[in-house]
Amino acid sequence: GFIRGMKTVTLIPGDGIGPEISAAVMKIFEAAKVPIQWEERNVTAIQGPGGKWMIPPGAKQSMNKTKIGLKGPLETPIAAGHPSTNLLLRKTFDLFANVRPCVSIEGYDTPYTDVNLVTIRENTEGEYSGIEHTIVDGVVQSIKLITEQASQRIAEYAFEYAKNNQRSSVTAVHKANIMRMSDGLFLRKCREAAEKHKDVKFTEMYLDTVCLNMVRDPTQFDVLLMPNLYGDILSDLCAGLIGGLGVTPSGNIGANGVAIFESVHGTAPDIAGKDLANPTALLLSAIMMLRHMGLHGHAQKIQTACFNTIQDKKVLTKDLGGSSKCSEFTEAICQRVQDMD
Amino acid sequence: GFIRGMKTVTLIPGDGIGPEISAAVMKIFEAAKVPIQWEERNVTAIQGPGGKWMIPPGAKQSMNKTKIGLKGPLETPIAAGHPSTNLLLRKTFDLFANVRPCVSIEGYDTPYTDVNLVTIRENTEGEYSGIEHTIVDGVVQSIKLITEQASQRIAEYAFEYAKNNQRSSVTAVHKANIMRMSDGLFLRKCREAAEKHKDVKFTEMYLDTVCLNMVRDPTQFDVLLMPNLYGDILSDLCAGLIGGLGVTPSGNIGANGVAIFESVHGTAPDIAGKDLANPTALLLSAIMMLRHMGLHGHAQKIQTACFNTIQDKKVLTKDLGGSSKCSEFTEAICQRVQDMD
Ligand SMILES: CC(C)[C@H](C(=O)O)[C@@H](O)C(=O)O
Ligand SMILES: CC(C)[C@H](C(=O)O)[C@@H](O)C(=O)O
Repeated sequence: GFIRGMKTVTLIPGDGIGPEISAAVMKIFEAAKVPIQWEERNVTAIQGPGGKWMIPPGAKQSMNKTKIGLKGPLETPIAAGHPSTNLLLRKTFDLFANVRPCVSIEGYDTPYTDVNLVTIRENTEGEYSGIEHTIVDGVVQSIKLITEQASQRIAEYAFEYAKNNQRSSVTAVHKANIMRMSDGLFLRKCREAAEKHKDVKFTEMYLDTVCLNMVRDPTQFDVLLMPNLYGDILSDLCAGLIGGLGVTPSGNIGANGVAIFESVHGTAPDIAGKDLANPTALLLSAIMMLRHMGLHGHAQKIQTACFNTIQDKKVLTKDLGGSSKCSEFTEAICQRVQDMD
Repeated sequence: GFIRGMKTVTLIPGDGIGPEISAAVMKIFEAAKVPIQWEERNVTAIQGPGGKWMIPPGAKQSMNKTKIGLKGPLETPIAAGHPSTNLLLRKTFDLFANVRPCVSIEGYDTPYTDVNLVTIRENTEGEYSGIEHTIVDGVVQSIKLITEQASQRIAEYAFEYAKNNQRSSVTAVHKANIMRMSDGLFLRKCREAAEKHKDVKFTEMYLDTVCLNMVRDPTQFDVLLMPNLYGDILSDLCAGLIGGLGVTPSGNIGANGVAIFESVHGTAPDIAGKDLANPTALLLSAIMMLRHMGLHGHAQKIQTACFNTIQDKKVLTKDLGGSSKCSEFTEAICQRVQDMD
């Protein structure tokens, strides 16, 4: 049943360690008295009547109703012809923007400190068009598709995001020196959006130069805006700077107000079911989700509890350098949340 | 006139700081008694009778004769329709492999130590096909072209390189999960080459995963083999790990035994002609060239002199953290070379 004053969120636990880390997040949300109830769904693609791959109707209906999803990792299907469920989700809900804040976590040491940037990736087209041909034997082409509409939408989103999140600059990342028409179109739309949002500083940089500058001094970057493939690359690179996918949140923003927040690490089948997984990435994604829903107080409280637990270094999962179980790490965060009351 | 026992190398000083750093390299080569004489040429693209852009015939003839070039930075022409001379050089001499060794320089501090890897980039096709169309208003496509022939050639080259340079593993970098046909073809050719060279370890990794792992621990990588655009990105990323383009050498290997070695930094017009430039990247490229020519003794001697000068920290150009002039840094290296006799 639905409880008054509670918002409903579609929970997609996913595969491998997905269920464990989802349980951890639910437990921490309970401790923090977050006014959310979960509607659990499975999203693994199925074949419809015509043989067409699709998200199961139950998951689709839930998402269309709740508009908000929290998702764990999904297995990459090995069956021939089986599409990536992640890609299918992006398509089904027109999740056009992938947003990944990369912020250094105090106490979790990496070669870098003070990283504080956000990658905003166009999530629907570019090199991910899926259109490929064999021209003649031994000659293959893939189509990179860039449209005015999608470029404008993501550019507009990036500037709005910058403003709503107190960020002062947007850097468009491109290779318009090589792909003059496609990246050129993308870049033109970024420039037009910049013209409309003069209160946000705008710069442009070649992707190769961004990568070079990023590993030398990531603190020079703020919001980075780019086409699909470049976003795939840069968002993982940036995750590496702060400690990897185990501590990096991700959100996918769609049309019609739909949004799915997810951890982007793998299913870790080797440790699945052993109470050894690190729920941090899913928890930080859930915190992004709370902010998206306007639940800023709860978001702040849980984030403080999580970061303090990591900084404290006493109760950490193995990948974070400790020897505690997932449940112990989760309990430590819950304890801190309750102590804040 | 040509001196007996001397090999001739085509020298392309280039623009901006190009002439200064070229002069520095010539001076150090003289001090090390390298048996090379230089044939200086300008390569900036010109328009032929039919309006077609081409490398000036004088430069082309010289390269076809000497087979070896050393090149400084080139200005990116701003005239409309003027092609990148760098791209034209790759095309003219079928420079199919871009090779960039990235090795940490002791005494030059970066967030990483012990980086010791080589990126091998397919340099002729992929996203650099130059084929783009407008499908309908606001919808643009760029063609990524992958051929069996070019993929096989670069894969074969990478394994041969690994063997000839005492390197034990090759990692193919790809996104064949997304571009199943094009990157799939590239990957298949890498696998086939690996089958032929079983003495070299072979692994495959997604580009995004490589970037993430690279910034977390670059020491896990040895030879990296990839299509054009991924090489553009990764080679700059890796250069960043060891201190930037000012200390990273590059070689372009072509068909018919042609090879051009070059510094890949810019022309630095702001400091051009002021005796402030750092010649290290061009010098290290020239050392790569010496090894390519079989002049290992001279290569080793100059490299030791260069690295010892940097490690010593007494005479360094500004970008390396010192306050010396280009000529002083050059002199310090010459001195060490002569002291080794
Ligand atoms: C799983 C895969 C399809 C995906 C991508 O390439 O986009 C992944 O790398 C990501 O970033 O979500
Ligand atoms: C100058 C430009 C055409 C070039 C490229 O994109 O290949 C540069 O980035 C490089 O790596 O040599």
